[in-house]
Amino acid sequence: FPALYHLITRERLTGRCVVLGVARSQQSDADFRALARDALAASGLSAEKIDNRWCDECLYFQSIGKSSRDDFEQLARRITDLETAHGLPGNRVFYLALGPEAFPPTITGLAQAGLNHSPGWTRLVVEKPFGHDLASARELNTLVHRSFQESQVYRIDHYLGKETVQNLLAFRFANAIVEPLWNRDRVESVEITVAEELGVEQRAGYYDHSGALRDMVQNHLTQLLTLTAMEVPAAFEADAIRDEKVKVLRSVLPLRQENVVWGQYGCGTVNGKQAPAYREEPGVAPDSQTDTFVALRVEVANWRWQGVPFYLRTGKRLPRRVSQIAINFRCPPTTFFQPFHSCAASSNALVITLQPDEGFDLHFEVKAPSQPPSLQTHKLHFRYAEVFAPLPEAYETLLGDVMTGDQTLFVRDDEVEASWQLYSPLLAARGPVKPYPAGTWGPPEAEKSFLRGGAWRLR
Amino acid sequence: FPALYHLITRERLTGRCVVLGVARSQQSDADFRALARDALAASGLSAEKIDNRWCDECLYFQSIGKSSRDDFEQLARRITDLETAHGLPGNRVFYLALGPEAFPPTITGLAQAGLNHSPGWTRLVVEKPFGHDLASARELNTLVHRSFQESQVYRIDHYLGKETVQNLLAFRFANAIVEPLWNRDRVESVEITVAEELGVEQRAGYYDHSGALRDMVQNHLTQLLTLTAMEVPAAFEADAIRDEKVKVLRSVLPLRQENVVWGQYGCGTVNGKQAPAYREEPGVAPDSQTDTFVALRVEVANWRWQGVPFYLRTGKRLPRRVSQIAINFRCPPTTFFQPFHSCAASSNALVITLQPDEGFDLHFEVKAPSQPPSLQTHKLHFRYAEVFAPLPEAYETLLGDVMTGDQTLFVRDDEVEASWQLYSPLLAARGPVKPYPAGTWGPPEAEKSFLRGGAWRLR
Repeated sequence: FPALYHLITRERLTGRCVVLGVARSQQSDADFRALARDALAASGLSAEKIDNRWCDECLYFQSIGKSSRDDFEQLARRITDLETAHGLPGNRVFYLALGPEAFPPTITGLAQAGLNHSPGWTRLVVEKPFGHDLASARELNTLVHRSFQESQVYRIDHYLGKETVQNLLAFRFANAIVEPLWNRDRVESVEITVAEELGVEQRAGYYDHSGALRDMVQNHLTQLLTLTAMEVPAAFEADAIRDEKVKVLRSVLPLRQENVVWGQYGCGTVNGKQAPAYREEPGVAPDSQTDTFVALRVEVANWRWQGVPFYLRTGKRLPRRVSQIAINFRCPPTTFFQPFHSCAASSNALVITLQPDEGFDLHFEVKAPSQPPSLQTHKLHFRYAEVFAPLPEAYETLLGDVMTGDQTLFVRDDEVEASWQLYSPLLAARGPVKPYPAGTWGPPEAEKSFLRGGAWRLR
Repeated sequence: FPALYHLITRERLTGRCVVLGVARSQQSDADFRALARDALAASGLSAEKIDNRWCDECLYFQSIGKSSRDDFEQLARRITDLETAHGLPGNRVFYLALGPEAFPPTITGLAQAGLNHSPGWTRLVVEKPFGHDLASARELNTLVHRSFQESQVYRIDHYLGKETVQNLLAFRFANAIVEPLWNRDRVESVEITVAEELGVEQRAGYYDHSGALRDMVQNHLTQLLTLTAMEVPAAFEADAIRDEKVKVLRSVLPLRQENVVWGQYGCGTVNGKQAPAYREEPGVAPDSQTDTFVALRVEVANWRWQGVPFYLRTGKRLPRRVSQIAINFRCPPTTFFQPFHSCAASSNALVITLQPDEGFDLHFEVKAPSQPPSLQTHKLHFRYAEVFAPLPEAYETLLGDVMTGDQTLFVRDDEVEASWQLYSPLLAARGPVKPYPAGTWGPPEAEKSFLRGGAWRLR
């Protein structure tokens, strides 16, 4: 609701765009508007601050009941009625945030009611999960393509809406000094970490059948991996960019179990607060083998990256909420500064932070003005919030792109499948989870030897 | 005096090191100590703040009278007496800050009195100017070498004592990400500017026979040029580094008059204050053709730099006091971001600032979080003063190096000669000076066409 509200008021779409909430529950328009007001208030937008016309004139609700054919036809009529009442040309976005079981009947229902066509354009936004393995992802793609064209489908991954992630492309390809460094000759390793402080919270019903690899790695971390590793696209266009992302996934060597550490949190202390073990969380099976942590060593076997390990890591109940991509550069080739410089400790690094604040730091060596001379590591620092007005929420950016029809930041069918192609065999032959205490950086197995003697930059 | 005081107290040399002032004038030790106290006070070190033992027990004065043989022998006896009285082992630094005419008789006088030898070591610090052309520099080197070995000679250039200048080597060779960018494939041009706000002040007697090229370019700017352009030395040692600096000078193509702009300031306004023309300054000839500004396009014709122009510029009565080295990188090779990116305006740059504050800025492109997407140039920022305690004055650093016998930051005989070899022919065939109003960045001839259509980054 806040993302929609910001987008619609920013783009001056009030009165030219209506939002129709659809769910199984029975609600009135007034109920739905109250829900929206609460959500806006929770984000800091109280009734006095907002343009109330948005709630009063743009928001409606329609129950889909038991999702029968009749329910979908009623929905279609309601949409047409609203468009007529508001004088709208029939451009439609269907935003599907559904549990896995509700997805197929919804796609079919929409199509049977003729809602895959409209007097204007029709676009379908699909929230995760998009399949739970390669076979199910392929089935979903086939199902969707029966009624919609791929150019109408916007698989949303909110990580791609983050300013820093979008800026990765500008950073790499609008700065001539970056590209010469972005390869196996200069880069020692790449670390991608998405760490959560929270546990499974209210999501155990879904999560205990999913786990960290499906919930986080297959989508979010893989998106970060492909944007980091991809070649220069032929054009700054959705398909040219997504072609390059798919190419990265096709270059990844098959993942082997010895390059993966599966973990599950036990009880512990996070940020000074006691936290229960995963298996004690409500809704979790007491003998659950679900991964709440996973670390992977990924090899991108192409000319640019062969031999450079990409370390991916995500987990719940880690010491703090932080997402970052660290490009660790090689050490200088000679021991020129050896007398006062231990190389291993201080190679250059570019650390791109997505959470909690968006920006990046360039770690570099400076001679300290001391006797005898010594080197110190310092950071060149950039934070979006220090330079730009408050950043749009990822969802605001992405919803705006859906409305203008820009698919660049959405995941294409072949991208989803290439990603599952990597992870499906790994899931099929998964080993047992290693325990780690809540509030630590995962099992010890994901440390030193996993990193070939190194250490995570973020620890 | 402040540099000496800081060095001696920092290194706890009080009582183990005496300073003997020598000049033609007649002064008592007490006069000299009063002079020192005034100098310390002027730098913010009042009598209450300082260790008074330094003034009372370490400072002495000896007149050299008319510089007769007898005067130098008296000086030698005074030195021996002081060393005996203080129980010193006879390690001696002769610091020569002399007018050109006083230099030869002083070297000869010291040698004749046997002061080129001592029971410990003897070192000779030589302040600029070191010659006024190639022939005179060679003569001075020959004269010095008759009595001193090159390993005893410390030709001082206070620019080399600046932290940022020393850090250039650490920056380039301790950061593996810098070296791949530091060449003709990646760099478009290099700009070195040393701009003064002041006019000729009380130095007209010397300056009107010297000019900007001799006073600033031959030494300071050339040092910055060689440190910027040099290859990786074989070791982090004085001679290995100075070998590489000389190699740069040997690679510079002979300078041609069409690549030089000579300027002289007229009256104008600097920082809101009226400033007279150079020819109206006291002590300047009314028809003086002395250069108070010079800009040069220098070509370093080696494998690393061929085709990359090095623009050097210095002048008096420019808009503000600032010294910087700007490495302008090439534009990205494709028009990838063309729709919202004018390349010429925003190539990457590394701007190293020596004055007024020491540090550097990396100019790079960021995608602004706006619709439609656009690029903005921002700076990654590093300032020594924000990270380290107050930096030592350049003279303190350099005097410390003299005492420990480190010649790295001093100019070697062949370096001086290689520099004069470049500039002597240019001076011999110099054209007339172009006028520029005080408070501007020099004659218009040093702008657009001189820069082959570009513009100075600093303007």
